[in-house]
Amino acid sequence: MEEEASVLFMPSGLRGQVPLGTTVLQAAQRLGVDLESICGGQGKCRKCQVLPQQGEFSKHGISSRADHLSELTQTELLHQSKNRLKDGRRLGCNARILGDLVVDVPEESQQHKQHIAKAVTAYDIQVQPALHLFTVTLPEPDMHAPISDKRRLQQELVREHELPVMDCEMSQLRLLQPALEKAGRQVTVAVYQFQQIIAVWPGEKKEVYGLAVDLGSTTIAAQLCNLITGEVVATADTMNPQIRFGEDLMSRVSYVMMNPGGDVAMTQVVREAFNQLARRAAKSAGIQVEEILDMTVVANPIMHHLFLGIDPTPLGGAPFTLATDQTQVMRAAELDIHLHPEARVCTLPCIAGHIGADTAGVILSERPDLAEEYVLLVDVGTNAEIVLGNRHRLMAASSPTGPAFEGAQISAGQRAAPGAIERVRIDPETLEPSFRVIGCETWSNDPEFAEKSTKVGVSGICGSGIIEVVAEMYLARVIDRDGVIGPVEGKPGARIVQDGRTYSYVLHEGERSIRITQNDVRAIQLGKAALHAGTRLLIDRMGIEKVDRIGFAGAFGSHIDVKYAMVLGLIPDCNLEKVGSVGNAAGTGARIALLNFPSRLEIGEILPKVEKVETAIEPKFQEYFIEAMAIPHKTDPYAELAKVVTFPAHKPKGKSAGGDERKRRSRRRRPA
Amino acid sequence: MEEEASVLFMPSGLRGQVPLGTTVLQAAQRLGVDLESICGGQGKCRKCQVLPQQGEFSKHGISSRADHLSELTQTELLHQSKNRLKDGRRLGCNARILGDLVVDVPEESQQHKQHIAKAVTAYDIQVQPALHLFTVTLPEPDMHAPISDKRRLQQELVREHELPVMDCEMSQLRLLQPALEKAGRQVTVAVYQFQQIIAVWPGEKKEVYGLAVDLGSTTIAAQLCNLITGEVVATADTMNPQIRFGEDLMSRVSYVMMNPGGDVAMTQVVREAFNQLARRAAKSAGIQVEEILDMTVVANPIMHHLFLGIDPTPLGGAPFTLATDQTQVMRAAELDIHLHPEARVCTLPCIAGHIGADTAGVILSERPDLAEEYVLLVDVGTNAEIVLGNRHRLMAASSPTGPAFEGAQISAGQRAAPGAIERVRIDPETLEPSFRVIGCETWSNDPEFAEKSTKVGVSGICGSGIIEVVAEMYLARVIDRDGVIGPVEGKPGARIVQDGRTYSYVLHEGERSIRITQNDVRAIQLGKAALHAGTRLLIDRMGIEKVDRIGFAGAFGSHIDVKYAMVLGLIPDCNLEKVGSVGNAAGTGARIALLNFPSRLEIGEILPKVEKVETAIEPKFQEYFIEAMAIPHKTDPYAELAKVVTFPAHKPKGKSAGGDERKRRSRRRRPA
Repeated sequence: MEEEASVLFMPSGLRGQVPLGTTVLQAAQRLGVDLESICGGQGKCRKCQVLPQQGEFSKHGISSRADHLSELTQTELLHQSKNRLKDGRRLGCNARILGDLVVDVPEESQQHKQHIAKAVTAYDIQVQPALHLFTVTLPEPDMHAPISDKRRLQQELVREHELPVMDCEMSQLRLLQPALEKAGRQVTVAVYQFQQIIAVWPGEKKEVYGLAVDLGSTTIAAQLCNLITGEVVATADTMNPQIRFGEDLMSRVSYVMMNPGGDVAMTQVVREAFNQLARRAAKSAGIQVEEILDMTVVANPIMHHLFLGIDPTPLGGAPFTLATDQTQVMRAAELDIHLHPEARVCTLPCIAGHIGADTAGVILSERPDLAEEYVLLVDVGTNAEIVLGNRHRLMAASSPTGPAFEGAQISAGQRAAPGAIERVRIDPETLEPSFRVIGCETWSNDPEFAEKSTKVGVSGICGSGIIEVVAEMYLARVIDRDGVIGPVEGKPGARIVQDGRTYSYVLHEGERSIRITQNDVRAIQLGKAALHAGTRLLIDRMGIEKVDRIGFAGAFGSHIDVKYAMVLGLIPDCNLEKVGSVGNAAGTGARIALLNFPSRLEIGEILPKVEKVETAIEPKFQEYFIEAMAIPHKTDPYAELAKVVTFPAHKPKGKSAGGDERKRRSRRRRPA
Repeated sequence: MEEEASVLFMPSGLRGQVPLGTTVLQAAQRLGVDLESICGGQGKCRKCQVLPQQGEFSKHGISSRADHLSELTQTELLHQSKNRLKDGRRLGCNARILGDLVVDVPEESQQHKQHIAKAVTAYDIQVQPALHLFTVTLPEPDMHAPISDKRRLQQELVREHELPVMDCEMSQLRLLQPALEKAGRQVTVAVYQFQQIIAVWPGEKKEVYGLAVDLGSTTIAAQLCNLITGEVVATADTMNPQIRFGEDLMSRVSYVMMNPGGDVAMTQVVREAFNQLARRAAKSAGIQVEEILDMTVVANPIMHHLFLGIDPTPLGGAPFTLATDQTQVMRAAELDIHLHPEARVCTLPCIAGHIGADTAGVILSERPDLAEEYVLLVDVGTNAEIVLGNRHRLMAASSPTGPAFEGAQISAGQRAAPGAIERVRIDPETLEPSFRVIGCETWSNDPEFAEKSTKVGVSGICGSGIIEVVAEMYLARVIDRDGVIGPVEGKPGARIVQDGRTYSYVLHEGERSIRITQNDVRAIQLGKAALHAGTRLLIDRMGIEKVDRIGFAGAFGSHIDVKYAMVLGLIPDCNLEKVGSVGNAAGTGARIALLNFPSRLEIGEILPKVEKVETAIEPKFQEYFIEAMAIPHKTDPYAELAKVVTFPAHKPKGKSAGGDERKRRSRRRRPA
């Protein structure tokens, strides 16, 4: 096994395990820490400054030392010499983690990523968990008033805490008398919803934990939270092991259809993954897994049903009927999830056959139902879940974008993993590309790239890379409005090669040649047409001209550059200053539901009012879909682009061609 | 294995398996069927007439044929010839079961055993179970109104049955869509407490069952009931397998104290016995064990705690603190009881450390809390549970009678089983005994006894036999008021033999010699003194002179002859016409709780108002105890006895001595 270090970020309290050699910035991004970075980790913007802490953080089990970070790099020394890096600070993108570490993120390095509609962070979730701890000391038993210890406990809870509890779980009642004996008749109980005792400990107990899980088709991500303080004390993620039964949702449903009972195996592996995540997160936070008493889960409908052990076959074909579209609460043990023996699990409700509890999580995180403005929320995966509306009316739909945005069904496509191309620029003069891969901050046209990318290599292209390359190909006129690849008149043609009857664009020649084929462009066109058509359908039905804000949820949403989304027409007309990522809103929704019990009731009240639009049976969907296949006509795409550039392109060293455009692009704007 | 036959008694619907060769009367007694018998199965009283049915009872899976009963006996032929046995009727005590059988008990053969305070039979329990069945047909799913099948189900339950259910157990939600598909969208659901769906079946389902269990230290007895009709469809009982850990309660608690964790093993075996009982009862009734959805349990505190998996050690010493004195409801599966996967278990509440849920069952069965008269209820075992009171005030106590009344710690004592002496008469002139053993209706002084008792033998003496022999010894002056055995002046002395420093009475000489020793008499004296002292304490505290009615609960109570209880002073002064057995009132209480949900709430309201009297710390208990050691002085015990004789003594053939007394005794009276 790879060696790992524990990292704790302050003041957020986010922590986790990272492989040795990870940069502080990468660690921050992986753990969801709010650490700004504009230059993409190139050591230029100096936004990602952090302050390593020294000393024993025994509460967290971390011994943080100066030499647990790599030595100052040339870049850092340069900034120090120019007085731009002071007081022991390090550049997050340069400093690599070599051992356990506590890192402080200064106020000015915090990005304060803006959520649309309503900002939700760990700090402004009102901590009102589903369960509470109460410590009481029972009087000694009295033969003259022979009542049971359970009744005495109930009486003390009323006397000391004005809390009339209904009952106590039998598994915990068994522990009551031994606990009383052990701790001089003092016990702490966990009371679920102020009604039911679900845990009994001897003496005083002050902390108890919960797990918020975002169960995706590809990744399962867990946040371990202290249910008393609301703090996220650890995060952990893992691949969804169901992938071996089918890469995407439909292939997993097909697996069940072809292998009756196959759902049982998929249910089993995903639950085992939950157990592993819980153990890892608990270990990372230095707690026992039995201290986890509550769990919330968001997932798409098929993952949701499989997790609950419900055969998802009915979701595989019309009329796509859910078994349940309600919040489900049960014991973790019933699902073979091993936390505290009486731990509860709450799955957020699914909305419709194609719109899951993950979308419920997005709604809970962003609360479009409270907004005055028209908010469009888009979560792109194999399907795009689309929510549109405001406090007066909400709609939701799912549109079959296909897996292209996730890098699947693309000739050189792959998941967002080290070695995947994630950023692409094409010089409109020379048609030469430059790109960046995940795990290496250097652009490919930088002379140091060959050396610096040795470790990760160039293995393929991921979702955000595909969006960018297709948009850049269009901007460089390598493809026309209909998406056809062809030689560009008056431009050098070395990058455009004939591939049978069509042309391809050669993005990279190396160990693995990476070409963008005509089929790849078609796949992106189909996906973006589906997304556009679904969005347009909702806008039509809402009877509005324009949305006021757009939020991209999920991993794809946080990686893509919205200007390219605009170039390709993925998103409808909107003031681009009001377009941005809302982060992992589904996962945030799960955390809100975990920490704030009333929100579980709220989402249950919101969802039935959401109008479900089934794109498959809307006559206009097909029409809009075909119209949206072309790339939208802009009189001057460069001029359009100038308004919205949010990402500084890498300016190839010693090269000035295309400088004007580059300069315009590099004017960075942030969504308001 | 012994060969068995299925027997179904009508109109009660009671049924069960009995070994081939069992008489109809024995079968009726074993299954709790109301079939009168005055002569004790000697073929004399002709009260036990029954009418065998012929034909296929396919609903019950019984093919009942005439030759499934033994041929007419000489006794029966005699009664027929005198026109005292007509229309195909048989004597229950003569006809032996040779194959599956349906037997009708005519109205005039029904005993209508009278309960004191309030008569409770299967017929007058108002059937209001904890769960109800509802069958609905859901509309076809509609993509234009995409709601889940669970929500549709809830909507239909409201529309058709005005029943808003809260939720559905996950294990059953999994079955919903397959059930809908299987049966054209018709399903039947079981709804617990009008709130929670705990079972889902495809199509229509009309019957569902429950199990009422009386968990005793020695025996576990189950009644399987149809929860829709209230009918008892089968009964089953078995020995409590915990006996191998200790014969009585205290030895089982000691086992836990000496073997930490020993409670786990005892919990396991008793639950396995429950599972066996459930399977046997289900088989006997021709149903699946998964059709059992509810269960109620009564037990003494130690059995109750062990069944729930609670360490009973605190009940083994002062202050005898219960873990719980409340009704507990949980899933059968939590207790490893395998019925329907969502079947519920409800344990009735214990009252105090020595007064268990079995006493709660007795109260529920007899409802002294509704009586105007002062009612005394006594359940005798190793401890006697005593309840005294009326609608204004109720008290309960437990008194340490010791195991003598159950035949333990008696030199020739044994449990009530075939071969045990259960009835004894001593001729006051000759001091010669006659007795009857369980499993043989012939008295020992009958010339046919040697032959007829061959099968069962004479193996020992059980609880009711000990009471009778000691009382008869007193009446024959073999013992004096202080309980000392000695020769009787002017009477033949062959039966009274010196045994070291004391005398013994020789009850039987055979393969095993059965003597009543001085120690045996002492054990009975101690037991009856404890019972008397406990009763007197309650009467004192209640501030009354005399109780109005006395009811003996349990097996001991239904076997002993109250006149002997009076002779020995087991019970306080009372009009003996108002003293009687209340049958297995604890078991009846369990059945009431099973069939009538509101009664579970009622008992929960009654019990906290019961004043618990802890005999061990009552200063007067010891005083009363010592006073009660002697046998109460009656000027003429025979004259007293004449008022209360309820059992016809066997009149030894060809012998007239003592005939006067015998005649007086044979005047049978029944409690009013």
